[in-house]
Amino acid sequence: MDYAFAKRYEGVEGSAIRAIFSLLADPQIISFAGGNPSPTTFPGEELARIAGELIARQGASILQYGGTMGTAALTEQVRGLFAAEGTVPQEGELIMLTGSSQGIDLMTKAMIDPGDTVLVEDPTFLGALQTFKLFQANLVGVRMDENGLDPNDLEDKLKAHRAKFLYTIPTFQNPTGRTLPAERRKAVARLCAKYGCMVLEDDPYAALRYEGEPQPSIKSFDTENIVVKLLSFSKTISPGLRVGAAYGPREVIHKFNLGKQGQDVHTANLNQAMVARYIESGVYPAHIRDNCAQYAGKLAAMFEAAERFFPEGTQLVRPQGGMFMWAALPERFNATQLFKTAVENKVAYVPGTHFYAGGGHHNTLRLNFTMASEERILRGMETLGALLR
Amino acid sequence: MDYAFAKRYEGVEGSAIRAIFSLLADPQIISFAGGNPSPTTFPGEELARIAGELIARQGASILQYGGTMGTAALTEQVRGLFAAEGTVPQEGELIMLTGSSQGIDLMTKAMIDPGDTVLVEDPTFLGALQTFKLFQANLVGVRMDENGLDPNDLEDKLKAHRAKFLYTIPTFQNPTGRTLPAERRKAVARLCAKYGCMVLEDDPYAALRYEGEPQPSIKSFDTENIVVKLLSFSKTISPGLRVGAAYGPREVIHKFNLGKQGQDVHTANLNQAMVARYIESGVYPAHIRDNCAQYAGKLAAMFEAAERFFPEGTQLVRPQGGMFMWAALPERFNATQLFKTAVENKVAYVPGTHFYAGGGHHNTLRLNFTMASEERILRGMETLGALLR
Repeated sequence: MDYAFAKRYEGVEGSAIRAIFSLLADPQIISFAGGNPSPTTFPGEELARIAGELIARQGASILQYGGTMGTAALTEQVRGLFAAEGTVPQEGELIMLTGSSQGIDLMTKAMIDPGDTVLVEDPTFLGALQTFKLFQANLVGVRMDENGLDPNDLEDKLKAHRAKFLYTIPTFQNPTGRTLPAERRKAVARLCAKYGCMVLEDDPYAALRYEGEPQPSIKSFDTENIVVKLLSFSKTISPGLRVGAAYGPREVIHKFNLGKQGQDVHTANLNQAMVARYIESGVYPAHIRDNCAQYAGKLAAMFEAAERFFPEGTQLVRPQGGMFMWAALPERFNATQLFKTAVENKVAYVPGTHFYAGGGHHNTLRLNFTMASEERILRGMETLGALLR
Repeated sequence: MDYAFAKRYEGVEGSAIRAIFSLLADPQIISFAGGNPSPTTFPGEELARIAGELIARQGASILQYGGTMGTAALTEQVRGLFAAEGTVPQEGELIMLTGSSQGIDLMTKAMIDPGDTVLVEDPTFLGALQTFKLFQANLVGVRMDENGLDPNDLEDKLKAHRAKFLYTIPTFQNPTGRTLPAERRKAVARLCAKYGCMVLEDDPYAALRYEGEPQPSIKSFDTENIVVKLLSFSKTISPGLRVGAAYGPREVIHKFNLGKQGQDVHTANLNQAMVARYIESGVYPAHIRDNCAQYAGKLAAMFEAAERFFPEGTQLVRPQGGMFMWAALPERFNATQLFKTAVENKVAYVPGTHFYAGGGHHNTLRLNFTMASEERILRGMETLGALLR
């Protein structure tokens, strides 16, 4: 049979990262490629106990169908987390998700007809790029500098395109690790409101801050009700549980609800209940501090090794948190071509080109520092440095 | 802000069933409206133990990101279940899902551009209708008789439309409870292959058989590799865990994989592992037999009550399994209008009109018999009968 697939799949070939993963089954490979949290941060003991207790005591409701908007218990905890940031969700403004990446899909589904414009940071999370492509969006990149997306370029792009929404990761951005300062966040909210463009604020790394001061969310500057903010537990509790949330205008969240009904009906009750109970138990802030202590040391090890081993002229971004370090090698280097040799030498990363809506930028690469031990980080960076010489 | 939503949401107002659910918070209401399995069938004790053990012993992998295609353990169990039906999935032909309803979404995403035709049984599962509408499909109903969809009408519709796929629930169909006999299943596979139309075989109720002989799947007659078959654990283990699977041609499952990456990355590892371990433990067949014994008595109670209390001239479908009984009242009755009065009198059902692609059929209603006790079934049916007189 010659399958007549829908047009949305033309040119969509799957996440490059996930294809790269399949090369990494070899445990000898030191991988800076993934976006995985370290399994040493998972609160396995507590979650094992919580899961058993929840099913034993509330099995009749936990194992039954649930509501699409999410359980009351998790909604309450999520409301508390947003309230702690100074923005208090009202009735109908929250929906629980099967991982916050579902929010990228549902936002695009809610807003985008084929050909509609989505503004993206250039570079940005490639899973989001793939989602936008599957909805046949017109992708327009917004320039970034060392402080994240550039409001002047944003305004130029807002003027030139009737963009439906801007997708941004303002804190410890994937892939660059950059953080948008407060005054730019305010400018983003103001400019997007001025041009009638919504904002999808994806912020999965913000809790992983190792230095510097927390920045207010873009949502906190949202006087015109144009911002949908996503919340993830994947980087702070467990990605395998697939639990996240979205907070946005009631009318938009209602569309999320309709769009989610047909996808998975609701996020698994057990997973929602486990996250809710874990937060409720009060250990979440201390748990995040422990994770940060682990990751801060790894980031320091990687950054120092990059300064020591990478070629002169390399531009390094030292993030204040998150999971990724970004490097722009001098123009004569090609990180895309080097990838194969690196894997043969048992080190992996993600070539930066994959994160650009328009490709190119072959001198850039993304380095994850959360998975490998400090000792392996040092060794892997030394190998990469040697290959670059 | 005046939100400029995507065209796909025009005229999509949410599942009527889910809106009806919100009316049913009152525990005094005897509900025949839902599609929920009875919580008395949930294997809560085993699942509580399994969940705790899995996290305690395999937390590092279970709490980590997983592959989009699903875990090896669940894939193996699912392969075994399909093999037991006489169809053996090959490499790349299976994907684990966040509930089998995700398979309806992913199939539509893979195949349908706006305006493309999906053939549906008339009436059919309304969650599927909503999904098809969100993809702006052209819905064409295929006539059913007491033995399910009519192959002659199917061929007429295949000739008249270049349909991308047929959506069918061949066993204990939702909403009618009807089962397609083997020779018609073979005809469906042959006719669809002849006209280049794929088949989405949704079969969540087949394991709940209370009498009669199991029928071969449409997939078992699939000589041309055009059938995607969905598998659900929602009706036999737990809907709240959101675990299902799809089995289809490798190229199509690859599109499911790409489409799922952006939605939820993967189905939660814990939920996949729980289902896999539960099946592996060997208790699944006996568990299903226990469920069937419970439900068979409830069906008998409801059917007898309908014969006794419903107006003369009512056409009743007595299913050999599943969760639903279907009734067509004499034409002068309007089950859609009666719904409000019924709820005021503490009985609920779903008006049949919601299940028809083109509406109408106000004399029909769907009655779920799995949730209420036999005593409440009798009382609820008596009330409905009185309201109809």
